[in-house]
Amino acid sequence: MCLPCPADNRLERGKSKPVSERAATRLHVTEPLAAGGVVGLDHQGAHYLRSVLRLNRGDHVALFNGADGEWLARIEGLGKGWASLAVVELRRPQAPEPDVWLVFAPIKRARLDFMVEKATELGVSVLQPVWTQHTDVTRVNTERLAANAREAAEQCERLTVPAVREPERLTDLLDGWPATRRALLCAETGAAQPVADALSGLAAEGAGDAPWAVMTGPEGGFHAGELDALRRLPFVTPVGLGPRVLRTDTAALAALACWQAWLGDGRQRPPDRGA
Amino acid sequence: MCLPCPADNRLERGKSKPVSERAATRLHVTEPLAAGGVVGLDHQGAHYLRSVLRLNRGDHVALFNGADGEWLARIEGLGKGWASLAVVELRRPQAPEPDVWLVFAPIKRARLDFMVEKATELGVSVLQPVWTQHTDVTRVNTERLAANAREAAEQCERLTVPAVREPERLTDLLDGWPATRRALLCAETGAAQPVADALSGLAAEGAGDAPWAVMTGPEGGFHAGELDALRRLPFVTPVGLGPRVLRTDTAALAALACWQAWLGDGRQRPPDRGA
Repeated sequence: MCLPCPADNRLERGKSKPVSERAATRLHVTEPLAAGGVVGLDHQGAHYLRSVLRLNRGDHVALFNGADGEWLARIEGLGKGWASLAVVELRRPQAPEPDVWLVFAPIKRARLDFMVEKATELGVSVLQPVWTQHTDVTRVNTERLAANAREAAEQCERLTVPAVREPERLTDLLDGWPATRRALLCAETGAAQPVADALSGLAAEGAGDAPWAVMTGPEGGFHAGELDALRRLPFVTPVGLGPRVLRTDTAALAALACWQAWLGDGRQRPPDRGA
Repeated sequence: MCLPCPADNRLERGKSKPVSERAATRLHVTEPLAAGGVVGLDHQGAHYLRSVLRLNRGDHVALFNGADGEWLARIEGLGKGWASLAVVELRRPQAPEPDVWLVFAPIKRARLDFMVEKATELGVSVLQPVWTQHTDVTRVNTERLAANAREAAEQCERLTVPAVREPERLTDLLDGWPATRRALLCAETGAAQPVADALSGLAAEGAGDAPWAVMTGPEGGFHAGELDALRRLPFVTPVGLGPRVLRTDTAALAALACWQAWLGDGRQRPPDRGA
C-alpha cells in the first residue's frame, strides 16, 4: 500500500509528470482555499517543509482544509518559523464522505495512537472517547489524538480530518444521542448477529444513507448492565466478530473495515496519481 | 472487548465460579496434553506465572498446544526457573480453524509487531513475509514475530498459534504456490473488485471451504510489474478497500477482517466463560 513518505516528494521532482501530480506531500490547513489565495504556515508547518522534507521556494505541496477540496500550492517564501504558499489550482474537489463515528473507551497510549491512525485511514468522521464502568484509563490527551488524526489524514489522501471530541460518560452520550444516528455495537458476549449478516441486511435496507457509529468497549469489555442497556436501544445493532476475543483496538478496526466495505465508501477507489 | 489481563486471574480466585471457568491465563505449550499428564515450563514460563501473575502452587491456568484442545492445569510446583503443572481436564476440544495465510512485505518494527498481533487475533494460520521490489526493510526477526504471535494467541482464546515462516522472494513464493490456495490481493491501483462484492460473490460460490491467503504489498505499494503478474494468476482476486490510501498494516487488517466476516469463522462466537 502506498504511504507517501517524505523521500517520495524529492524523488518525484526530477520526473516529468505534470506539476499537479508531483506534489506527494499533503498538508491540512485551516484557512480557506481558492485560486490566487495565499496561505501561511506556522512554525511547525514551516519546519516540516524546510527541515523534514527539505523543500525550497518554488516546490509544490497539496493543501486541504476539509471544505474546499485539495489544492496544489507553491512555496513562495520559507524562513525559520514561517512559510507562505500560493494556492495554484484545484487538484480534487471536496466530495461527501461517510458519516461514521467511532465511540470507544480509552485504552493505553500506544494502542490509542495506533487506533486513531487506523480509524482515520478507515474513514471515521468523529472520534468520541467514552468513560464506561470498566474503563481503567483515567485521562485522554485529545490534543495528541487530534495531531495523530491530522497526520494520518494527510497521508491517506482524505479530504477531511476526523473531529476528536472530549471524553463523555457513556450514559451522557446516550442521553444526547442524535435521533437518526445508528450504531454498530461490538458485542463480545450475549446475543449478536454475525457482522456479515447484519451488514448485508442493513445494506439491503439502504441503511448506508444514515449517519452511523461503531461502538467498542474497554479492555475487559462493557459492564453487563451497560451491554444490556445498549442492546435495548432502538438504534443499536449488536454484532459479533468471530470466535476470538479481540482487543478494543482490533475490534474497532475490524468493525470499521466491515462497515466501510458494506455500508460506507468501500466501492470507491483511491485517486489516480498517474503512478 | 475482553483482554484477560493478569489482574483478572487473581481477582477471579475469590469468586465462586467453577474451577474450569476460573483460569483466565492461557499458555501455549509444545508438549502433548491429556488428562493425568504433567507439563513442565521453562524459565520464562515459570517467571511469568510466579513474578508477573503472582500465582502459587494450587492455582490453575489453561494450556493449549494447537492440537489437543484447551486443558485446565494446576500448578504443582513452582520454583526459580521451573514450573510443573498437572493436566486436569479438557476445557475446550480442538476445533477446525480457517486456513488463511497473511502474505506481507515486511514493514518497520513497531508496525510489524502490531500487525502480527492483530493478524493473530483476526485468525491467520500462517504469517509469510515476502521480499518485493519496493520493500525497503532488509531484515525480519522471525523469532520476535513468533513470540508476538504466541502471546496474542494466548490472549485471544485461539487454540492455535499462527506459524511464522521465513521470508521468501515473492517470485519464489508464487513459483511454489499450492494448487488449491486462493488469494485476496489488496490492490490499491488498477482494476479491482470492491471487497464487499468480491467476498459476497465468493461466499455464494462456497469459496470459504478453500484455503486462502490475504496479500499486501510494502509501503510504497507493489511494483507495477508485480501487480500485473499477480493479477494474471488464476488464484488471485484483486480487491479494493475504498478511496483512502491505506498503510500496509491497515490494509492487511481490513482485508483480513472482511475475509473472516464473509468467508471465515465470523459467524462463530467467543467461548462462554460465564462472565
